[in-house]
Amino acid sequence: MHYAIDDTIVALSTPEGTGAIAVIRLSGKEAIAISNRVFKGKDLTRQPSHTLHYGSIRDGEKVLDEVVVSLFVAPHSFTGEDVVEISCHGSPFIVRQIIQLLLKHGARLATAGEFTKRAFMHGRFDLAQAEAVADLIASDSEISHKTALNQMRGGFSQEIKDLRAQLVHFASMIELELDFVEEDVEFASRDDLRRLVEDILRVVNALINSFALGNVIKNGVPTVIAGKPNAGKSTLLNALLNEEKAIVSDIPGTTRDFIEDEILLGGISFRFIDTAGLRETTDKVEAIGVERTYAKMKQASLIIFLFDLTEETITSIQKDINVLENLGIPFIRVGNKIDQAQPDLLKALESIPDIVYISAEKRENLEGLKDKIMALVDLNKFSTSGTIVTNVRHYDSLVKTKEALEDVLKGLDSGITQDFLAQDIRHALHYLGEITGEITTEDLLGNIFSKFCIGK
Amino acid sequence: MHYAIDDTIVALSTPEGTGAIAVIRLSGKEAIAISNRVFKGKDLTRQPSHTLHYGSIRDGEKVLDEVVVSLFVAPHSFTGEDVVEISCHGSPFIVRQIIQLLLKHGARLATAGEFTKRAFMHGRFDLAQAEAVADLIASDSEISHKTALNQMRGGFSQEIKDLRAQLVHFASMIELELDFVEEDVEFASRDDLRRLVEDILRVVNALINSFALGNVIKNGVPTVIAGKPNAGKSTLLNALLNEEKAIVSDIPGTTRDFIEDEILLGGISFRFIDTAGLRETTDKVEAIGVERTYAKMKQASLIIFLFDLTEETITSIQKDINVLENLGIPFIRVGNKIDQAQPDLLKALESIPDIVYISAEKRENLEGLKDKIMALVDLNKFSTSGTIVTNVRHYDSLVKTKEALEDVLKGLDSGITQDFLAQDIRHALHYLGEITGEITTEDLLGNIFSKFCIGK
Repeated sequence: MHYAIDDTIVALSTPEGTGAIAVIRLSGKEAIAISNRVFKGKDLTRQPSHTLHYGSIRDGEKVLDEVVVSLFVAPHSFTGEDVVEISCHGSPFIVRQIIQLLLKHGARLATAGEFTKRAFMHGRFDLAQAEAVADLIASDSEISHKTALNQMRGGFSQEIKDLRAQLVHFASMIELELDFVEEDVEFASRDDLRRLVEDILRVVNALINSFALGNVIKNGVPTVIAGKPNAGKSTLLNALLNEEKAIVSDIPGTTRDFIEDEILLGGISFRFIDTAGLRETTDKVEAIGVERTYAKMKQASLIIFLFDLTEETITSIQKDINVLENLGIPFIRVGNKIDQAQPDLLKALESIPDIVYISAEKRENLEGLKDKIMALVDLNKFSTSGTIVTNVRHYDSLVKTKEALEDVLKGLDSGITQDFLAQDIRHALHYLGEITGEITTEDLLGNIFSKFCIGK
Repeated sequence: MHYAIDDTIVALSTPEGTGAIAVIRLSGKEAIAISNRVFKGKDLTRQPSHTLHYGSIRDGEKVLDEVVVSLFVAPHSFTGEDVVEISCHGSPFIVRQIIQLLLKHGARLATAGEFTKRAFMHGRFDLAQAEAVADLIASDSEISHKTALNQMRGGFSQEIKDLRAQLVHFASMIELELDFVEEDVEFASRDDLRRLVEDILRVVNALINSFALGNVIKNGVPTVIAGKPNAGKSTLLNALLNEEKAIVSDIPGTTRDFIEDEILLGGISFRFIDTAGLRETTDKVEAIGVERTYAKMKQASLIIFLFDLTEETITSIQKDINVLENLGIPFIRVGNKIDQAQPDLLKALESIPDIVYISAEKRENLEGLKDKIMALVDLNKFSTSGTIVTNVRHYDSLVKTKEALEDVLKGLDSGITQDFLAQDIRHALHYLGEITGEITTEDLLGNIFSKFCIGK
């Protein structure tokens, strides 16, 4: 793959805001020459790759900052081009001044994801790996981090590429038959082809199925805590949040990005959806509110049904449980305020199986509840394949691959001609190729990289 | 100066949040060894200073990220110690994981400003220069940036050190006289001493006077737009803001730290203070609100008095001007909505001098207003010295130096004994030394560096 990339791009690569240092990155043919024009220190054009140089950035006589410059000479860089990273003081004002100066000297502002796009174009990694870079940066739990990193390191791509290579072999054999169509030869064994397509379909199906887990990994498990007002929903959420927060907050300043209503259990993120609470009502306006609550609950993958052991009756609890069972979403029955529970109610509840008794306020048996939650979202049941698809674009391509492969099988069954068979195989090859970027269009690339942040 | 610093510190040095890359910095005797324990790639302990190394960070078998490591071998680093900078993917989750791993392997979390404190302790720069690092990061205008950078590069410190060195010479001569007190010798010429002290006083006074400008540079000019409701105060502020914003916003993403009510004119930042507006009232509750407005106006260095040319009368305008004149703060009379002004009012206003006529909405004559603002805060009138003091701690030390030097002069006038004279000179030396850190205490250092951000 060859692209003519002539210009040199620049962007702030560290998060915006004030900090000790900020890093401005340049990539392109002129990256070193442009940097050298504004750098006072050693002659950067004469330094070896992978070296660091202290000096100052100057606009004519005016010193903008004292910096350390990192040199990466092509092809030994992230993008595969000459790359310069300028580590300056972390002031937005200084960053702006330096970038403006670099623009003046011939660099161009990078678009979103343009560094990674160049890395892809120069064959540093394939498209699925490039997309994993963005996922890696966005990862906020053990498992999303692991999945993205695994993907960035090429795990998933290799599987797709191997499958595709085998199919390419058959495709070329069948295309060859087309050249000899008059002679009715068969270079590609139809039985072997069927076996291969069935093998590929098995893998593709496993990858498609893994997407349910992949989606959970990337976006968290949407979870609703349902229950009457005063059942202790907020107390429970806070109790769950605080426990987890205590773990992450021993490093000052690293928890700012923590989303208040998201908690990590066993490396999986649970995203809590706020609801108005379950409530029996004859009031019409309130009934609409309750309808909305049910609508939200239907979006959940998990419902924690919380009832108050000091206030409710066995009848009202059983009624709510009936409603929840009709929703068809996994739910956990949780009796709250066990420390002050009505003894009669507790006795009556013995007829209902699988209740977890807790006190959210006293933090009693939160572990028991967590175990129950984890049991319901058992990761193993999501996927049979070791590889997990997290990207909706990959999922779409896999589904299209599957359809094309099923067409191939149908074609084999009905004994269609080589040209139709070849066409169906080409479709499958196309969709598989889209995942790793062996097949790309400018639109596709633009769409993918525009979702990146600038500077990556 | 020698300090035993045995441990190795670590912190995130780039701003928090999500970005393409984040930089984690280690400094100390074990910085390279600790990094090497978690880095898979080349053996970092055997690499030369100022080199870059690609590899991965691993917790046992688990890969945390792919990174580039920068090596700075002591004493050729920011802190003067071995320094390692790990450039990882800019995810808060990954940053947390890597820092936790480094802590596990023997690093300690850095306190605020601890890297800069170590640089100071290892004699990489003096205290005033260290403080300028924080100012530089906080700088948000041309002039605050220039002043901080100049200070960080030692401009101000050298002046103080030169003065102090000359005074030290006299101090030692006078201390020597104390050894020969029986013999009534005079090693230090009292006339020369008086001339030197007077010279130093002139410089110290100039520096003290420069603080008024220094404060403006660092904190902006507190400015109030006063006027009746509907005079167009918000429209004017927005008009001023938008013009300036257009200048800074051509680099996407670098303006997030822009404070909405702060604008830069001629490199100086003007900090706008919101007020309830001038209003004549007989209502008691409202009168309290107006009192508060006046209290706020008294904090301002500049008042823009805006009146509505379509609504007000010459009487009401004159009344407000009288109130403002009593405040004793520079103010600009600005007639707004010139495009729809009442002709009679315009004629009557000819009796009042120096009115700037604008239309905030139509953006008419904003330049005229800006020129007027700039004329009132003429930088040249603030300072006679080329060096500008921006730091309140330096200012305090200079004031104390001045007092001590005046005591020396008084002592010379009244012919006090050597020991009293020596004591006054020692006071002056002490306060001058505090500025550059030639005289320090742990309290002083703790106080200074605690104001830094972590990672610097």
